[in-house]
Amino acid sequence: MTVGSVLVTGGTGYIGSFTALALLEADYKVVIVDNLYNSSAEVLNRIELICGKRPEYYQCDITDEKKLDEVFAAHSDIDNVIHFAALKAVGESGEKPLDYYHVNVYGTLCLLRSMKKHHVTNIVFSSSATVYGDATRFPNMIPIPEECPLGPTNPYGNTKFCVETMITDHINAERYNAQKAGKSEEEFNGALLRYFNPAGSHPSGIMGEDPQGVPYNLLPLLAQVAVGKREKLLVFGDDYNSKDGTAIRDYIHILDLARGHLIALNHLRDHHPGVRAWNLGTGKGSTVYDMVNAFSTAVGRDLKYEVAPRRQGDVLDLTANPTRANKELGWKAEFTLEDACADLWRWTENNPQGYRQDPPKEFLEKLKAQK
Amino acid sequence: MTVGSVLVTGGTGYIGSFTALALLEADYKVVIVDNLYNSSAEVLNRIELICGKRPEYYQCDITDEKKLDEVFAAHSDIDNVIHFAALKAVGESGEKPLDYYHVNVYGTLCLLRSMKKHHVTNIVFSSSATVYGDATRFPNMIPIPEECPLGPTNPYGNTKFCVETMITDHINAERYNAQKAGKSEEEFNGALLRYFNPAGSHPSGIMGEDPQGVPYNLLPLLAQVAVGKREKLLVFGDDYNSKDGTAIRDYIHILDLARGHLIALNHLRDHHPGVRAWNLGTGKGSTVYDMVNAFSTAVGRDLKYEVAPRRQGDVLDLTANPTRANKELGWKAEFTLEDACADLWRWTENNPQGYRQDPPKEFLEKLKAQK
Repeated sequence: MTVGSVLVTGGTGYIGSFTALALLEADYKVVIVDNLYNSSAEVLNRIELICGKRPEYYQCDITDEKKLDEVFAAHSDIDNVIHFAALKAVGESGEKPLDYYHVNVYGTLCLLRSMKKHHVTNIVFSSSATVYGDATRFPNMIPIPEECPLGPTNPYGNTKFCVETMITDHINAERYNAQKAGKSEEEFNGALLRYFNPAGSHPSGIMGEDPQGVPYNLLPLLAQVAVGKREKLLVFGDDYNSKDGTAIRDYIHILDLARGHLIALNHLRDHHPGVRAWNLGTGKGSTVYDMVNAFSTAVGRDLKYEVAPRRQGDVLDLTANPTRANKELGWKAEFTLEDACADLWRWTENNPQGYRQDPPKEFLEKLKAQK
Repeated sequence: MTVGSVLVTGGTGYIGSFTALALLEADYKVVIVDNLYNSSAEVLNRIELICGKRPEYYQCDITDEKKLDEVFAAHSDIDNVIHFAALKAVGESGEKPLDYYHVNVYGTLCLLRSMKKHHVTNIVFSSSATVYGDATRFPNMIPIPEECPLGPTNPYGNTKFCVETMITDHINAERYNAQKAGKSEEEFNGALLRYFNPAGSHPSGIMGEDPQGVPYNLLPLLAQVAVGKREKLLVFGDDYNSKDGTAIRDYIHILDLARGHLIALNHLRDHHPGVRAWNLGTGKGSTVYDMVNAFSTAVGRDLKYEVAPRRQGDVLDLTANPTRANKELGWKAEFTLEDACADLWRWTENNPQGYRQDPPKEFLEKLKAQK
C-alpha cells in the first residue's frame, strides 16, 4: 500500500536520491525525472539495494514542459512534487547566470505549469540558505531564523530567491482563485526548504554524493584530498571574524535532510499551511577548520590544506535557527558531524569512482544478509 | 545621420511609443518588436505624423527567441535595447502569476540571450517603483531613494524585481568574463529605470495611452469617466494616512519619462557605468483626490467618484526621490501635473476610440502646417 505518489525532480542527484529513498521507505510511490547532467542513473540500483524498492525513472530535462506533461499524464496518481532539479554551482553562476535563470527559474515555471495542467497541488521546493545572503548585516539574525530579510549575494542565490517568490505567488493565486470559485483552497500548498550544508552519506557505504567534475563543496573536496585525487584543500579566507578566521557553516547529515523533506511533505498533506518556509539545519555552526579536523579524525590522518583569498559572494556565517522546523514539523537533526564524516569516509574509501564502479562486494553481501 | 540603433521591445505600448518617438527625434534609428497584445500598430502612423520618421516594426512576442534572433540578424547595426515588453496589470498578476513570470521573466531571458548571441551590450530596462513595495515600513525612505531596500508586494512587482536581478547578474557576468579574457568591460551596461506613475499624452493630441479592455491606472480611468464610458471612478481606500486619506503617487508626464529613457541610454553609451538604477519621478506626491481635482479642472466639470475598499498590494506612498537621476543623468521632470491633465484631456476628447479611429482632421492639418 502506498500512502501517496511523488514526482521527484532531480531525483538522481545527491539530496534528491536520499529523499527518494526516504519516501520509498515511508511507502510513497516515487517517480523521478532527471537529465543526468550532474548525476548517474546507477543511484537507482543503490536505492533498490538499500530498500528493496525502485523508483520509476524518466530521463527528462526540467525545461522540457512537453515531456513533463507526458510523465504526469502517464502517472495520474502523482499528487505531490519535490523539486530538486537545478544548477547549483555558486561560482559558475557568476559566469553563466543566464543558464541558471534558464534551468532554475524557467525550469520551475515549466514544472508549475505542468503541475497545474495535471492538477498536482503540493510542492516541496529545494531552496537554500543562500537566499539569506549575509545575515550578519542585521542585528540578532545569527543563527538565522526564517524571518531574516532575504538578500542573496550571487546569481545562484538570486535564482533560488526568485523561485521561492514564484512558488509563493502561484500557490497564493491558486488559493485565491479556488476561494473565488467557491472551492476549497486547502489542497494548494508549498514548502520552501532552506537548507544549510548537506553532508555525509548512507551508512551502508553504497550511496553518497558523486559530483561530476570539480566538486563545489567543502566535504567532497576534502574527500578528494583524502583519496589522493586532489593535492590539498583550498581554504577560501582565514580572515573572517570567527574563532579561527574561517567561515562558519551549518553541516547537516544527508539522512536528516532527506527525512526533513519527507516530514515537510507529510505536513503539507496533513495541515494545508499554504506556502511556508522552513530552515533545515542543525543550529550548530562549524568553521572550515572544524570540518578539516573532524574529517581528518574520521580518515585517521591529517589532510593538507592551503589558505586562499575569500571567494566573491561568500559570507561569514550561515548557521540555521531551526526552531520553526523543530516546532511546526516536529523535525530535528539527529546525526552528528562525526556521523557525517565517518559515513562520508566509508563511502569515499570504498567508492573512489563514485557510481562509476560497482559497490564493494562486502557491502552487497552485508545488505543481502540483512534481508 | 543616425547616432545609433535601438531595438525597442513593447514599442507600440504607451511608454514604448513615446520613447520610440523621443529616440527618432534624437536621430536614433528605431526598430520595434511588439506582439500588439495591449497596443495598436496605428501608433506607428502617429509617430510618423509627429516627427516625420517611422520606426521599423516587427510583430514578435518577446518569448519567441528565434524571431528575436531573426530581427537582430536583419539589423546588425542594433547596438542597444530598450525593453518595455511585459504584462503590467497588478491585479491580474495576483490571479495569473505564471503568465507574468512567463512574459516578464522568461521573455527577458530570451531577450538577453538573443542580445548576447548578436553582441548587443546595452540595455535600458523598464522597471517600476513597485519594486520598492511599501517604503513607509522604513524610516526616512519617503520620498524613495534608489537605496531603499526592495520588497515588492504583488506578483507583477516580483517579476520586475526578478528581471532587475537577472539583468544585473548578466551584465556583471559579461563584464567579469570580458575582464578575464583581457577585453574591455566598458561596453556592457544596463539601466534599471524605476518609474513612478506615467501620465499625460502628446501635446499634438494625436498620441496617448490607449489601453485595451479595462484600464489599470487612475488617469485613464478618470478619462473614461470624463467621456462617459464609465459611470464613476472607484477610489480604492480613503483611510490611508495621507492628508485626505487617499493613496499618494508621483505622476510624471509621459514626455519627461520618454526623455528619461533617451538620456539614460545616452549615459550608458557615454559613461559605461555598468548596471545602475535610476528613479524617474518628479519628487512630488499627489493623492487620488488631488488627481481627481486636477483632471476635473482640465475637463471643466466635476467627475463622479466613489470610495471602495483598498486593493491588496497597494501601498500608502510611492513618491520618488529623483536626486540620483537629477545629478547623474542631468535629467529632471519639466512638465507639471496640469500639463499632463490638459494633454490627456485633449487626447481623450478628440480620440475617444483611441487608435481605433482616425485622428481629428484639424490636428492633421495643424501638423502639416508646421512642416
